[in-house]
Amino acid sequence: MSERLDGQTRLFPIVGDPIIYVRSPEWLTRGFSARGKNAICVPMQVPVDALDAAMKGYAVTPNIDGLLITMPHKFTAFEYCSTSSERAELFGVVSVMRRNVNGSWHGDVLDGLAFVHAQKDQGAKPEDAKVLLLGAGGAGSAIAVALLGEGVRELVICDTHEERADTLVQRLQDTAGGRIRVGPPDPDGCTMVCNATSLGMSEDDPLPIDPALLKRSMFVGDVIAGHGETPLLAAARAAGCNTANGDQMVESVQEMMLDFMLEAWKP
Amino acid sequence: MSERLDGQTRLFPIVGDPIIYVRSPEWLTRGFSARGKNAICVPMQVPVDALDAAMKGYAVTPNIDGLLITMPHKFTAFEYCSTSSERAELFGVVSVMRRNVNGSWHGDVLDGLAFVHAQKDQGAKPEDAKVLLLGAGGAGSAIAVALLGEGVRELVICDTHEERADTLVQRLQDTAGGRIRVGPPDPDGCTMVCNATSLGMSEDDPLPIDPALLKRSMFVGDVIAGHGETPLLAAARAAGCNTANGDQMVESVQEMMLDFMLEAWKP
Repeated sequence: MSERLDGQTRLFPIVGDPIIYVRSPEWLTRGFSARGKNAICVPMQVPVDALDAAMKGYAVTPNIDGLLITMPHKFTAFEYCSTSSERAELFGVVSVMRRNVNGSWHGDVLDGLAFVHAQKDQGAKPEDAKVLLLGAGGAGSAIAVALLGEGVRELVICDTHEERADTLVQRLQDTAGGRIRVGPPDPDGCTMVCNATSLGMSEDDPLPIDPALLKRSMFVGDVIAGHGETPLLAAARAAGCNTANGDQMVESVQEMMLDFMLEAWKP
Repeated sequence: MSERLDGQTRLFPIVGDPIIYVRSPEWLTRGFSARGKNAICVPMQVPVDALDAAMKGYAVTPNIDGLLITMPHKFTAFEYCSTSSERAELFGVVSVMRRNVNGSWHGDVLDGLAFVHAQKDQGAKPEDAKVLLLGAGGAGSAIAVALLGEGVRELVICDTHEERADTLVQRLQDTAGGRIRVGPPDPDGCTMVCNATSLGMSEDDPLPIDPALLKRSMFVGDVIAGHGETPLLAAARAAGCNTANGDQMVESVQEMMLDFMLEAWKP
């Protein structure tokens, strides 16, 4: 897995609970190796009420250069960052942390960026686009921020929990400057449709949108990873749409995390 | 280095400062692999005043199954053990810690045992022997305890800092029951001579004992590792003695640590 493991190895723990399902130790360590770095990502099982003790330990361990944060710590870990990106501050969420020069932590959240990156990689053009975003939870929130950053003209957010969509629109109104609103799951006039709901993880999930409404001019992306082509993407492809799947988002996240972590690299 | 590194990997940090010179991440991880265990030893640089925070972090991280303790923490770490071996309690020193069933730590110190194991492996017979032990520091103290445990008849301890030898003899008097005393660096009547001083690490070190006093009936062992055959062992071999070197002790330590850690193994 890692070519080297010795006293000089730099550490990038992934912190969460449960931890046994995480894949970062494999791909991030492989990524470090591929870039010639003596570094590994190690799984750290940290229960929900134990983050403070764990963080205080990482703080005093100088060969820990970065942290990956996963469930249930993404909100709590934000409190341990001295600095963070604007997108992390918007929701008080981090998924990655690296050392500042003074040893304190800098936090960021890359999931939304990675989703949009995967869409563009597959041919989507978010700039000046009208976009329908399905789902206003954690993933949807991050994607909304990233889409606004890409200069979308109009962002319509739809969630079966309507107050969740309302809350998100209110929180992003300053950033969005009138470009964002709550709306029904109707992609009329949109050139991008983004699924950020969990629909598609289970075989008998309904589609998050009526597939009859999809047109070939729409680019359709899905956050669901590890499930092959989701029913939504199959329907989109049948309608002649270009698509991006969740696995492509995961690949983007991985490259971005590696870039993020290696800015902290001290040879 | 390690065949697996994933979310299920169990962790055995080695804790010290400096940490870049430690070899345990390589050999212990290789040892885990050889025994079919998904586990790695990771280097954790923990400065002298940071052990408390680090320990509190390890305590709440359930996939950390064991710890190796090195400079400068061998004494301080003892305080974090709920249970420990008698030999660890004698001096309040630990070099290895593993989880008890309730998650607390059990400590032990294996260096003295490993030294004696290496001597026996090479043909020494400590039982009922008269032994000259050179050096009453950390290594010498651990070796003295291990030799007494092997049933030596008489243990003569010599140190250039005479009060250090006195202190060690006093501390071990209960355990030793009259079998231990301070003496000069004269192996007359001994069948074992053990060097536990650091003499031999540097090229221009004097020998810890006058080589003219060595006889072929004496088994001579050295703690100095990584320096090939030390001048003491070369002189001993020239005198016809059987010998054991520090590298053989290190091999014994490694096997013992692996055994110690894997008693904590939860598959």
